[in-house]
Amino acid sequence: MQALHTINDIRSALKQARRAVEQTKLTSTVGMIPTMGYLHEGHMSLIRRAKSECDLVVVSIFVNPLQFGPTEDFDKYPRDAERDLRLAEEAGADFVFMPSVQEMYPAPIKTKVIVTSITDVLCGASRPGHFDGVATVVTKLFHIVQPDQAYFGMKDAQQVAVIEQFTADLNSPVRIVRCETLREPDGLAMSSRNVYLNEEQRKQAVVLIETLRRIDDWVAEPGMTIEKLTQHIRGNIESAPLARIDYAEIRTYPGLEPVASMEEWHANQPILVALAVKFGGTRLIDNRIFG
Amino acid sequence: MQALHTINDIRSALKQARRAVEQTKLTSTVGMIPTMGYLHEGHMSLIRRAKSECDLVVVSIFVNPLQFGPTEDFDKYPRDAERDLRLAEEAGADFVFMPSVQEMYPAPIKTKVIVTSITDVLCGASRPGHFDGVATVVTKLFHIVQPDQAYFGMKDAQQVAVIEQFTADLNSPVRIVRCETLREPDGLAMSSRNVYLNEEQRKQAVVLIETLRRIDDWVAEPGMTIEKLTQHIRGNIESAPLARIDYAEIRTYPGLEPVASMEEWHANQPILVALAVKFGGTRLIDNRIFG
Repeated sequence: MQALHTINDIRSALKQARRAVEQTKLTSTVGMIPTMGYLHEGHMSLIRRAKSECDLVVVSIFVNPLQFGPTEDFDKYPRDAERDLRLAEEAGADFVFMPSVQEMYPAPIKTKVIVTSITDVLCGASRPGHFDGVATVVTKLFHIVQPDQAYFGMKDAQQVAVIEQFTADLNSPVRIVRCETLREPDGLAMSSRNVYLNEEQRKQAVVLIETLRRIDDWVAEPGMTIEKLTQHIRGNIESAPLARIDYAEIRTYPGLEPVASMEEWHANQPILVALAVKFGGTRLIDNRIFG
Repeated sequence: MQALHTINDIRSALKQARRAVEQTKLTSTVGMIPTMGYLHEGHMSLIRRAKSECDLVVVSIFVNPLQFGPTEDFDKYPRDAERDLRLAEEAGADFVFMPSVQEMYPAPIKTKVIVTSITDVLCGASRPGHFDGVATVVTKLFHIVQPDQAYFGMKDAQQVAVIEQFTADLNSPVRIVRCETLREPDGLAMSSRNVYLNEEQRKQAVVLIETLRRIDDWVAEPGMTIEKLTQHIRGNIESAPLARIDYAEIRTYPGLEPVASMEEWHANQPILVALAVKFGGTRLIDNRIFG
C-alpha cells in the first residue's frame, strides 16, 4: 500500500497501477472510499467491499474544513494518521490519499457545488452550508482520483442522497455504492465521533438503534398515524435522560419529502426514519430505511 | 464522423475509439469543443486546432436553456443541425454530440456549479445566473465526454475565466485551452448572434474592434488616466449612432478586479478591456487583453 500526499502523486501512481492491471485485463476498475479518517470497522467494511469488487482501491483521508460550520468540531475532529494507514492496509487498500488543506485549497475557493431542496432538511437544516461543502469536496476528490465506483455508508443517509443527486445531475461517471451501516455489538452505529462520548453517554446512546428497532411494532399498531409514530419515536429517545433531540423525522428516500399519512408510508416506500440526537456536545445520527 | 444523440452512445463510441487509438500508441488524447451550434469559422478554427493536438475530437452542440435568462433569446437562438454537421466534419471533428434538452435534463436539476465574485461583473452583472448555467452544463459535458483538453474562444473572455476558475477549484482533469478570437475581414468578432444584425447594424458593429484597436494610441497619450481612457472608449463606441453600451470596462485578467490607475494598468497586466454593446435587440461582445 502507498500513502500519497499530493494530487500529482496520486494521479501518477493510479495511472501506472491502472496500466499494470491493463496488461492482463482489458480494463481496470478503481474503487474509492472518501473518508475524514479516524477509521473504524465501518470504513474497513467499505474498503473490504471495494477490494472484492475492484482491481484497485483508494481511500482518501481528508478532514474537509468546508463542511464544518464555524461553531463545529473541525479543530477537535479526531485524527490519527498512523493508525489509519495501518487499518486501511489491513482492510486491503492499495492507495491512501491524504492531502493537506493547502494541497486541496491552495487559494480561496470561488466555486461551490450546491444541491438544493434535499439539503434544506434534516442535517442540512441545523448545519447550513454543510452539504455544499460535502458536494464540493467529493466533486474535487472524484476529479482527482477518477474512480469507477465510490462507497458510502448509509449511516449518513442524507449525505448518500445528496451525493447520488449531484452525481446524477452532473452526469458524473462515478457509480455510487450504498453500504449498510456497521454497528457496535450493542447496536450503536459506528462513527468517528463516538470517541467523544463519556461512559454514561455511550451507554445511553444505544437508545437510537433501540428506537429504530421498535418502529415495526408501532407501525403494526391499529390506528397508527405519522403523528403518533413520531411521538413514539421522540418519547422513546427522551427516555434516555441525557438525550437531546435535534430531529426525528419520517421522509421519503432519497427524495426526502415529508410523509403525511400511514397510507403514504405504505405507498411511497422506501421511507427513511432519521434521527439526530445530542449527548452533551456530541451529535449522533442514525436512521433506518423501510421498504 | 459520427453524430451521437445520447450520453450512452457518445460514451461507448469514445471508449471504443480510445481503445483503437491505444492499439498503436500508449495513450489517447481527446479534445473537446463545447458549442451551442450554428457553427462559424471561429468554431472551425477551434476544431482544427484540437485536431492538430489530439487523437480524437468531439464537438458538442447543445443550446443550454440553463444559461439563458427568461427574457433572453433561447427560443430564437439560431439552429441548423445539418449545416453544423457538415462544417464540423469539414474541420476534422470525429464525433458530434448533440443531445436533446430531455437527454441533458431528464428531471428538474437540483444541482448547480456556482462561481462567485468573478461572475458578478461584466456579462454576469446583466445576465444573472448565466454563468451558473455555463459552469453547470460544462461540468456535465466534461463528465460525459471526459476529454483531456477543451478549447474555448477568447471572444468570451469572462466565460474562459469562469471555466478556468471552476476547473481549477474543482481539480477537473480537463486542461482548458484559450484560443484567439476569429474575426470577419472588417474585424467584427465572429459570433452566431451576428446573423441577427441588419445591414446598417452590421456596418456599425465594426466600431467594437475599431475602439479596441485605438487603445494603444490612447494609452500612449501623456497624462492618460483610467477614467479618461474609459471616456475615450465609450465616446468612440457612441460615435456609432445605433450602438447602446451595456458595459465598457477595464479589469485584470483572469481575476476581473477593477483597475484604478495607469500605474496599475502597467503593473498588473494582463489587463482586459471588455465591451458589450447592443445594436437593436442584439448584444455583441468583444474584448482585448493587454500584456
